[in-house]
Amino acid sequence: MSAHPLQFAHRFDHVSGSAIREIFKVIAKPGMISFAGGNPSLQALPDEIVSDLAVKVLREDGKALLQYGATEGYPPFLESLRDFIRDSVGFIPEAVLPVTGSTQAMDLLCKALIDPGDTILVENPSFLGNLQCMKLYQANLVPVDSDESGLIPEELEKKIQEYHPKMLYTIPTFQNPTGKTLPAERRKKVAELANLYGVIVAEDDPYRDLRYRGEPLPSIKSFDRDGWVVFLGSFSKIISPGLRVGFMAGKQEILRKCTIGKQSSDVHTANLNQAIVDQFIRMNLLPGHIQAICRDYALKMNRMLAHLEDLSEVIHYTKPEGGLFIWVELPAGMDAQSLLNQAIESKVAFVPGTHFYADGAHINTLRLNFSNSTPDQIDEGMNILKKLILQAV
Amino acid sequence: MSAHPLQFAHRFDHVSGSAIREIFKVIAKPGMISFAGGNPSLQALPDEIVSDLAVKVLREDGKALLQYGATEGYPPFLESLRDFIRDSVGFIPEAVLPVTGSTQAMDLLCKALIDPGDTILVENPSFLGNLQCMKLYQANLVPVDSDESGLIPEELEKKIQEYHPKMLYTIPTFQNPTGKTLPAERRKKVAELANLYGVIVAEDDPYRDLRYRGEPLPSIKSFDRDGWVVFLGSFSKIISPGLRVGFMAGKQEILRKCTIGKQSSDVHTANLNQAIVDQFIRMNLLPGHIQAICRDYALKMNRMLAHLEDLSEVIHYTKPEGGLFIWVELPAGMDAQSLLNQAIESKVAFVPGTHFYADGAHINTLRLNFSNSTPDQIDEGMNILKKLILQAV
Repeated sequence: MSAHPLQFAHRFDHVSGSAIREIFKVIAKPGMISFAGGNPSLQALPDEIVSDLAVKVLREDGKALLQYGATEGYPPFLESLRDFIRDSVGFIPEAVLPVTGSTQAMDLLCKALIDPGDTILVENPSFLGNLQCMKLYQANLVPVDSDESGLIPEELEKKIQEYHPKMLYTIPTFQNPTGKTLPAERRKKVAELANLYGVIVAEDDPYRDLRYRGEPLPSIKSFDRDGWVVFLGSFSKIISPGLRVGFMAGKQEILRKCTIGKQSSDVHTANLNQAIVDQFIRMNLLPGHIQAICRDYALKMNRMLAHLEDLSEVIHYTKPEGGLFIWVELPAGMDAQSLLNQAIESKVAFVPGTHFYADGAHINTLRLNFSNSTPDQIDEGMNILKKLILQAV
Repeated sequence: MSAHPLQFAHRFDHVSGSAIREIFKVIAKPGMISFAGGNPSLQALPDEIVSDLAVKVLREDGKALLQYGATEGYPPFLESLRDFIRDSVGFIPEAVLPVTGSTQAMDLLCKALIDPGDTILVENPSFLGNLQCMKLYQANLVPVDSDESGLIPEELEKKIQEYHPKMLYTIPTFQNPTGKTLPAERRKKVAELANLYGVIVAEDDPYRDLRYRGEPLPSIKSFDRDGWVVFLGSFSKIISPGLRVGFMAGKQEILRKCTIGKQSSDVHTANLNQAIVDQFIRMNLLPGHIQAICRDYALKMNRMLAHLEDLSEVIHYTKPEGGLFIWVELPAGMDAQSLLNQAIESKVAFVPGTHFYADGAHINTLRLNFSNSTPDQIDEGMNILKKLILQAV
């Protein structure tokens, strides 16, 4: 660009966003069996219902929906959202804010709270997209150790004492990428530590309604005493990710700051999209829809787990109670990226686990998604993966 | 909050967002004649067309629309957007990025380019929402002087030499809040200075299609040689603000960075909303719709100008060729806030001009919007304002 070099902002110094994008470019080829994404299955996406609801809400309140809306949200949706949080998530929110997908909730929370250099504690591994978000706010990401039940409270307390973090970012239910679920007593402990030390908890819980066995657990937020926990919710997995509607719920003081941040992020979440989700809740369409999705995903998860069982002498893997992902640890020294390269030649794809670690490494791990393949594709793809893994051992 | 004080990020130290919000709360009362917002008129919002288009796109590509989309945009929309930019705005874009309203374009551009302390040159006065955006990126906002034709190129060059800014933010056509339009030769000069000194120009042009007289002007971007100008476009004023669809167009290298930033802002702009705007362009519905809007707004603007003519001996005001706003300078020493307080008692509202100045002051200025009132409301409201102003002189 002419004689002057273009200088990007320093927040991009360590963010390229490229590794995963390259994978997704490769796997977009026709005929690929992809265990790589985190997408709902196409059958789970209610296109006919959404079409009917769009017509309904545009007929009933079309002018208001197409006009500028309040940053605080579309009033009828605020009402049904509070009902949804009370009835489905199980706590009474002090304040709620509809957002443009729960990704925006994380962005706004960082905007409100994080100065460059502030420490955020993260599960290790954790969700890639939000790791990138926190890096763009130039946070100092410090991993907290987990065991098979997720975050270890004693480790969390040690890290809090050592790093005086501003925030903990956690996905307590059917975690991305591991599929692990934090037990109730640990959730309580996390809330207690947050209140004791004054640490904000970003409780990211987009998968909680996708439970295939076991009992629903109380949210971390439900154990919160003084407002340190902010709950981030999503309709992407239970209605549609393409609509981009999520929410945050927590203390008024914090959500007020997020609302001011949202004014200059996108002014407000599209009214039509809020109204469609509002109708989904209001017309009580969610329970039946979620049940149908869960039936389908449970079958797929069990199919994939049955294949992994064949490898149980050489690999470790999680046995989730819900969600979209299974996490696999290959024998030490085996490289999931090499495995991926071979798998892609046989038209099977997944995401190497190293990308989910704030501190990289862990090259013998990988994430498998089962929701976005048919049972036949799961059989075909897993047979190929099994063969490749057994060859490499 | 317990024993620990909650510490918000320093980017909020000088951003309260409250002054204007308070005004909008007051004017939301029933019966208020509001010249305060920047809203399209309700009649201009095509609710029936949008309903038909929603059904059409959900029938034709519903599953893909409800699934996750690419951050880069919905492919059919990328195609029609390029056509729209070429045919309507008048340049061939190197790269385009659909965004969640053009407010997000400004946010992403700042995210890509602005470190705390970087200087951004701004028109004085300028659009409040984007001033807040730049403040949240902790930019050093430096005003550039304008005359009745807008930004003065000689002043711009002086400020560039003095401050070595990273960016210039400008609204060249029917500016918000002044309604001023930058002449073609100045647009060319701005592009030349940007290329000569290596300064990014954020050319924010949401009103360009709302022209009621005079000839369309080439964009600053059309004079750009090396890619220093980024064009920010919007469908809020010509289709619907509630849908939240805008775009940015410029050099690939810059838009790539904005795309990575958008991944963790909201992943992608809602597909359904992109598809609806795509159909508007593709089915050639825009020209007729814009013509109808312009006919309506021209009438309203002229009505308001006729009233202001009655005050021409005591006030100065702009005579825009289009857009949504007229800018008024009361006699020196008169306070627009006091005028507003009185006006609100008579159920008339507007926005005092001081809020649009990066450096405050200018308490004798105010902004009037004409699009969102009926001709009768304009008569009634302006008669009240005229009376109050003449009493105060």
